[in-house]
Amino acid sequence: MTKQQIGVVGMAVMGKNLALNIESRGYSVALFNRTAAKTEEVVKEHPDKKFKATYTIEDFVAAIEKPRRILLMVKAGAPTDATIKELLPHLDKGDILIDGGNTFFKDTIRRNEELANSGINFIGTGVSGGEEGALKGPSIMPGGQKEAYDLVAPILEQISAKAEDGAPCVTYIGPNGAGHYVKMVHNGIEYGDMQLIAESYDLMKNVLGLSVAEMADIFKEWNEGELDSYLIEITADILTRKDDLGTGKPIVDVILDAAGNKGTGKWTSQSALDLGVPLPLITESVFARYISAYKEERVTASKVLPAPATFKYDGDKKELIEKIREALYFSKIMSYAQGFAQLRSASKEYDWDLPFGEIAKIWRAGCIIRARFLQKITDAYDKNPDLENLLLDDYFLEITKKYQQAVREVVALAVQAGVPVPTFSSAIAYFDSYRSERLPANLIQAQRDYFGAHTYERTDKEGIYHYSWYHEE
Amino acid sequence: MTKQQIGVVGMAVMGKNLALNIESRGYSVALFNRTAAKTEEVVKEHPDKKFKATYTIEDFVAAIEKPRRILLMVKAGAPTDATIKELLPHLDKGDILIDGGNTFFKDTIRRNEELANSGINFIGTGVSGGEEGALKGPSIMPGGQKEAYDLVAPILEQISAKAEDGAPCVTYIGPNGAGHYVKMVHNGIEYGDMQLIAESYDLMKNVLGLSVAEMADIFKEWNEGELDSYLIEITADILTRKDDLGTGKPIVDVILDAAGNKGTGKWTSQSALDLGVPLPLITESVFARYISAYKEERVTASKVLPAPATFKYDGDKKELIEKIREALYFSKIMSYAQGFAQLRSASKEYDWDLPFGEIAKIWRAGCIIRARFLQKITDAYDKNPDLENLLLDDYFLEITKKYQQAVREVVALAVQAGVPVPTFSSAIAYFDSYRSERLPANLIQAQRDYFGAHTYERTDKEGIYHYSWYHEE
Repeated sequence: MTKQQIGVVGMAVMGKNLALNIESRGYSVALFNRTAAKTEEVVKEHPDKKFKATYTIEDFVAAIEKPRRILLMVKAGAPTDATIKELLPHLDKGDILIDGGNTFFKDTIRRNEELANSGINFIGTGVSGGEEGALKGPSIMPGGQKEAYDLVAPILEQISAKAEDGAPCVTYIGPNGAGHYVKMVHNGIEYGDMQLIAESYDLMKNVLGLSVAEMADIFKEWNEGELDSYLIEITADILTRKDDLGTGKPIVDVILDAAGNKGTGKWTSQSALDLGVPLPLITESVFARYISAYKEERVTASKVLPAPATFKYDGDKKELIEKIREALYFSKIMSYAQGFAQLRSASKEYDWDLPFGEIAKIWRAGCIIRARFLQKITDAYDKNPDLENLLLDDYFLEITKKYQQAVREVVALAVQAGVPVPTFSSAIAYFDSYRSERLPANLIQAQRDYFGAHTYERTDKEGIYHYSWYHEE
Repeated sequence: MTKQQIGVVGMAVMGKNLALNIESRGYSVALFNRTAAKTEEVVKEHPDKKFKATYTIEDFVAAIEKPRRILLMVKAGAPTDATIKELLPHLDKGDILIDGGNTFFKDTIRRNEELANSGINFIGTGVSGGEEGALKGPSIMPGGQKEAYDLVAPILEQISAKAEDGAPCVTYIGPNGAGHYVKMVHNGIEYGDMQLIAESYDLMKNVLGLSVAEMADIFKEWNEGELDSYLIEITADILTRKDDLGTGKPIVDVILDAAGNKGTGKWTSQSALDLGVPLPLITESVFARYISAYKEERVTASKVLPAPATFKYDGDKKELIEKIREALYFSKIMSYAQGFAQLRSASKEYDWDLPFGEIAKIWRAGCIIRARFLQKITDAYDKNPDLENLLLDDYFLEITKKYQQAVREVVALAVQAGVPVPTFSSAIAYFDSYRSERLPANLIQAQRDYFGAHTYERTDKEGIYHYSWYHEE
C-alpha cells in the first residue's frame, strides 16, 4: 500500500485549509480528527483530492511514510499534550511532529525536550495569515531540530506565501521554542499596529471631524506610500463598508468599541517584562484593548469626569492629516524597534541565534503585519547583523529626523484635545528616553539606596556604592 | 523549661530587626539561622534581650510554646521551600508559619494549600518599610487562615507602625496569597511614585534649568501640601546631600542613571496583564527602569538620534513648577486608581474579599509609599465599599477637575521639549480613555473580524456578529 507523504491532525478550519494547501502542491495527505465526522466531511467535500481519511490514531500513523511528517493543528495547551500522548506510542525514532498552533513558546521548549528523549523531532511553528492564509499561503515561522526542519522545508516552502521577489515566506527560525516565540512577537507587533491605526482614526474623527468615507480615502492613499501594508489596506476597505443589517450606517459605527484578545499580545509584554526589555508601545496597545473592554464603567465615567477646555484645531486640515501619517509611521518604527530589541534579547537568553533579517523577510507576505516597510528591516540587518536597535540604522534614523516634529505636535495636540493616544505618546517617550544620554534614573537609584540600601554605581568611577543617608546632617 | 513565645528563622538584617522589634514589645524569641555564626552574633550583640539562640531545627522548634508561631525571614523562592521542608517534621497541628519575605503570591497560595493538608497554618505577609521599618515599625500585610491570624494579631499590631491617629498599620488582608499580592501591588505603586517624581525632577532640571538646591526646596515645599509623603520627603533630603567622595557635587549628580529592580514591579504588571486590568502607569515605570539600564546604547544613540527643534520655555517659572506639582498629583491618582482597580479584579479572581479601605489605611505609615493622601482612599471606600474606580469618588473627581489642564500642558510641553515623560503621558491617556464613552476599539474589532473572523458585538443590539468581508463589493 502506498503511504501518504504527510499527515494532518485536526480538521478545524486551519487544519483543513493547510491540508488543502499541502495537497494542492502535489502531496498525498493522511487526515485525522478526534471526531470522525469532521474528517468524513472534509473528504466528502473534496473527493478528488489525494486525501486519505483515517479514523484511529493507529491507522493514521500507519498511513504515513517514514520518517513521518505529522502536522498538529489542534487547540493550543492541554489538547496538544493529549494528542502528542496518543501519537507517541505509535511513532518511530526520527519521526517529526509539527505543532502549527498558537502555542506558548515555553510549552514548545518543554515538548521539544521531552520528545527528543524519545528520539522524536518536534517543530513548533508559527503560522500567520488566518484562514485565508492557511489555504493560499501563510507566513511560517518554524523552530526545532534543524535536521528535522530540512526534511519538511520543501513542503513548507511550497505552501508558504511568496514575497514580491518570489522568496517563500518561511525560514528556519532556531531551536525548540524559537518559532513560536517569533510568532508571539509578530502578534504583539500586530496589536501595536492596530492600536496606532485606531488612534490615527480617532484623531481624524474627533479632532478633524472627518467622515468615515473621507477617512477611507485617506487610508487608501496612505496605503500607496511607505505605510503600504495589509492592515492599512483592510482599514481602508472596512471604512467603505455599510452595515449589513440595513441601518444605512457605516459598519464601523455600529460595532461596539470593546476589543477582545486571544492572549498573544499579553504574552509578548510579559516576556519583555521577564527579559528586562522595554516594550511600552505593544504593552500600551494591550492595555488599550483592556480599557476598551470596561465599556460600562467608561459610559458611567464619561458622564462625570471632566473634559478638557474646549479645543478647536484651526490649522490646515491637510497638514494635520499628513502629520498624523508621519506620526503613525514614526510610531510604527518605535514599535518594531522595541519588538526586534526583544527578539535580540530573547535570542541571547534562550540561545536561539535568531536570524533577525530573515524574520522581517518572511513577514513581507502571508501574515497580518505584512508591509512594504519590512524590507527596510531586512536591509538594516543585512548591513549590520549585530545592530543593537533599529533606530541606529541609517534609514530609520532618517525617518526619525524627518518625522519626529510631527509626532510631537500630534501628541501635544491630542493631549490638549482630550483624545487618548497611549501608543503615540509612548512612542515619543521611548524615542526621547532612548536618545537620552542622561535619564533621571539617578534619582531613583538614590531613593532605592536611601530606603533599601540597594546601592548604586557612579558616573565617574567603577564600583558599587552606598551612601550613609542616616548618618549625616 | 519556659518556652519562647515566638520563633524567628533567618538572621539577616530584616529577620534580626523584626526579632528585636518583637522582643522590644515584651516577647521572648527563639532564634535560628542556617549558619550558626549569625545567630551567635545576634545574641552576643544583644546580651540583655529575651532571645534564645538555637542551633538545630529540632531545638528551635522545641523551644517555642504551642501553638507555635514561627516567622520565616529567609530568601524568597527555593530557600523558603527548603526551610519549610526542614521544619515540617517537627511541627504540630495548629502551628503557624509566617512567611515575611518578598514572596511571589502564587508560591504563597501553593504553600498555604500544601501545609493546610498537614494541619499547619501558613500566613504569607508583606512587610514594608525596609530595615529601619522592620526595627521600628513596618506596615504589615498578612494573608492566610483567619483563625491563625487572630493568634498572631496581638504581636503584629504591637510591632507595626502606627498611623497619626494611632491605628496600627496591620490588618487581615485575606486568605492564602492575599497578603503577598497586596504587598506586590504596593511595590508596583512605589515604582510608579518614584518614576513620577523622577519625571518632575527631569522637567525642572531640563526645561526650567533649576539647580539641585532649588529643586530640594521645591520638593520640601511640596511635602507640606497634599503631596506630603515619605518619597517626596526623602527626595528633598537626597537633593540636599553632597557627594561623600569629595567632588563637591550634589550626590545625585554623580549617581549613574541606570535603575535596578527586584522584580516586584514586573510581577505587578504581569499580573495585571493576566487579569485583563489596564495598568499602564506602573508598567511604564517598570519599562522606564529597563530603558535606563541600557546606558551604553543610550550614550551611542544620544550622539546620532535627532533632538527636537530648539524649545525654550518662556512662561513664568513659578507657574510651571505649580503645574508640574499638579501633574504629579493628578498622575499619582491615576496610578492608585489603576492599582486599586487591579486589587479589585484580583480579589474577585482569587476570591479574597480584599478590604480596600483598610489596605489604604495600613499604608499610611511604616511603608515606602506612606502618604497623607492615602486617607482619601480610605475615605472613598468608607463611603462606597463597591467603588468601581477611585476616579469616580468625589474627592478624586474634584482633583481631576482642578488639575487636568495642568497635566495636559505639562505633557504637551515635555513632548515638544524632548523630555521623556512616559508616566505623565500614560496618566493622561488613561484618564482620557477611561472617560471616553466611545473609544476607537470598534475599528480594532472590525479588523479582527476581517482577518480572523473573531466576531464583534454591536452598539444597538445584543448578540455576536460576523461580517461577510469577502463577499461584498
